[in-house]
Amino acid sequence: MINEDSVIPKGFLISSAEAAIKKPGRNDMTLIYSTVRAQAAGVFTNNTVKAAPVIVDMERIAKGYGRAVFINSGNANACTGKKGMADVLKISAALAKLLKIPETDVFVSSTGVIGTPLPMDRIIPKIPELAQNLGKSTLLDAAQAIMTTDTFPKLISTELKFGKAQSTLSAIAKGSGMISPSMATMLSCAITDVAITTDAIKEALSASVNESFNSITVDGQMSTNDTVIVFANGLAGNKTIEKGTKEFKSFQKYLTETFSRLSDMIVRDGEGATKFITVEVTGAHTTETGKVVARAIADSSLVKTAIYGQDANWGRIMAAMGASNIQFDPYKVDISFNKVKVVRKGLSTNNDTAATEVLKKKEILISVNLNMGENSAKIRTCDLTEEYIKINAEYRT
Amino acid sequence: MINEDSVIPKGFLISSAEAAIKKPGRNDMTLIYSTVRAQAAGVFTNNTVKAAPVIVDMERIAKGYGRAVFINSGNANACTGKKGMADVLKISAALAKLLKIPETDVFVSSTGVIGTPLPMDRIIPKIPELAQNLGKSTLLDAAQAIMTTDTFPKLISTELKFGKAQSTLSAIAKGSGMISPSMATMLSCAITDVAITTDAIKEALSASVNESFNSITVDGQMSTNDTVIVFANGLAGNKTIEKGTKEFKSFQKYLTETFSRLSDMIVRDGEGATKFITVEVTGAHTTETGKVVARAIADSSLVKTAIYGQDANWGRIMAAMGASNIQFDPYKVDISFNKVKVVRKGLSTNNDTAATEVLKKKEILISVNLNMGENSAKIRTCDLTEEYIKINAEYRT
Repeated sequence: MINEDSVIPKGFLISSAEAAIKKPGRNDMTLIYSTVRAQAAGVFTNNTVKAAPVIVDMERIAKGYGRAVFINSGNANACTGKKGMADVLKISAALAKLLKIPETDVFVSSTGVIGTPLPMDRIIPKIPELAQNLGKSTLLDAAQAIMTTDTFPKLISTELKFGKAQSTLSAIAKGSGMISPSMATMLSCAITDVAITTDAIKEALSASVNESFNSITVDGQMSTNDTVIVFANGLAGNKTIEKGTKEFKSFQKYLTETFSRLSDMIVRDGEGATKFITVEVTGAHTTETGKVVARAIADSSLVKTAIYGQDANWGRIMAAMGASNIQFDPYKVDISFNKVKVVRKGLSTNNDTAATEVLKKKEILISVNLNMGENSAKIRTCDLTEEYIKINAEYRT
Repeated sequence: MINEDSVIPKGFLISSAEAAIKKPGRNDMTLIYSTVRAQAAGVFTNNTVKAAPVIVDMERIAKGYGRAVFINSGNANACTGKKGMADVLKISAALAKLLKIPETDVFVSSTGVIGTPLPMDRIIPKIPELAQNLGKSTLLDAAQAIMTTDTFPKLISTELKFGKAQSTLSAIAKGSGMISPSMATMLSCAITDVAITTDAIKEALSASVNESFNSITVDGQMSTNDTVIVFANGLAGNKTIEKGTKEFKSFQKYLTETFSRLSDMIVRDGEGATKFITVEVTGAHTTETGKVVARAIADSSLVKTAIYGQDANWGRIMAAMGASNIQFDPYKVDISFNKVKVVRKGLSTNNDTAATEVLKKKEILISVNLNMGENSAKIRTCDLTEEYIKINAEYRT
């Protein structure tokens, strides 16, 4: 059902342009436009320090619809004060004028360096190009324009069918550092031609983000700019999907799968990552406590470096769990690496040699059974390597 | 007043021995013994997963006195179940018998790899050597025997005077990874010949740990074995110090200074560290909220890699603060690096060039003023480098 061809849903047009925001030589702005008004929903960072575009978008999305999403990379427009807010309004006003739509139908997302004002002298002259070239870019072009330290573009398209109506759900995302649960992700934008009510799309978004972007971590660092926006313009011609229906469940499943695939791509592209790690905690009292334990493991620099070193050092997993403030009995815990049990009832099974062997794989499953209850949680993360340090020590140079 | 000569307080004897616990070629056990009963107090890890020696010591310290502290490196005796507990009791029983003291007067501390039982076949035969050689080792020998990934031994001695009585306060510590606030530290043992009540030494220990070992972080990872034990045997002959007196305040000050110096050494020896960073948060509503903000900054892998890269990327400081769950107004915040102001009222001062220059220093002071209240907090930490990854990826090999 899911394929990664670059399919643009009906009624959406995309353009991209180069404003040399951080440096020249690549497109760093994209515009995603719906020819008709689209139902819209968004999820944004919980960070107290919110970038200017996040503040504007949060207000604008409340009305439940929109027409255009502008995204730039290279500069986050965060910690930029009144000028930052004014710049967002200038960009959306310029686009609104050219597209002949209300300013409040334009959403703006930015990603990149914090604390430096947007180079408006380079951005504003390129706005007409973005408006004129609508339809000339692919989904891949858009995904490429929003990359920062990403090493590959992240996009996905799914063909859906509701009744006889053929429809498409496509999404792009960026992000490989400052990725942590309890927020959306750096940036993602999903577009679909499905007809769906605003209430339904809001609910579907919230549930799907929880299971996808909120269940990954690269470095435990919450960003100032995290934004996920969904547009649904209804041009597929299906019967409008309402909450609580079979069609709603189906749509929510697709949206969750789309975001999960993008989340996985973000983790796989985690800065400097060499391993894709799934931390699965079972036997928890509640899903929430399971998730706290899973995050404590996934965010532990000692666990991440051990996996990088292909060392079945489960003691670091126990120490990270014990520091999570969740009550459990260490002598009930079972731990496996890729199904090789290394801890049974809190004690070593002396399987370190076999475990070290499976840690040579690229995909690592850390399974922890607390044996305390019936609930479970999963977090996906990557290892911590010298390359992460290098990327982040040299980020602005 | 403080000097780093290896002075052993009156009535204390030290020995050390090699049991090749992790590998041969160095002393990895030490015994610190008081010829008379000493008042004793301890602070231990908050981790749910507590090593066997921690569980035993916590019980034994409750009575408020002791005679001997045994410490080994190379193996943490954590996650080792009933055998781990039995091993602690065997070690303390063997020592008690040779030293002719009650078993419960012996404290045991261990540091090193988690999850592997102690090599008792190598430790037990060396116990008589430890007992026989009491008095033959220096404080430096003891500090060296407890090192794991430490690159230098950590010890300090201070000459104190109470009335006409000349006395000494000496301490050793180890630890350069798995160091985080909200716990003691990996291991520290302080000995003094001062006469002081058990209540007074308990209170002095608690206050001084809070300002020293609980105010540092290397990697935000809480250990299973953190232990600080203080012995005061009273042989200095001063009038016994009681709580609330001038002498008590003075003693507490010395203890805090001793532990602060050791904490600083631990941070300076942070795994792979190239910079010593002090994060100072002022203008906080309460000391506690200030400390939470300071920790959020100090534990941010993005802040730590920026400092390593000598990049005045204050946006990462703002993002880390905003993720701390403490309420503040981003546009009231001032930030300086070594007194060079980079943020005034939440906005860039465009001083990045000057700030980048001061970041070339080894000692970095990050000053953050929230401008919200009258309280402040300080956390000391180090940068995050490729060497940290290397050390921790290869720890058990």
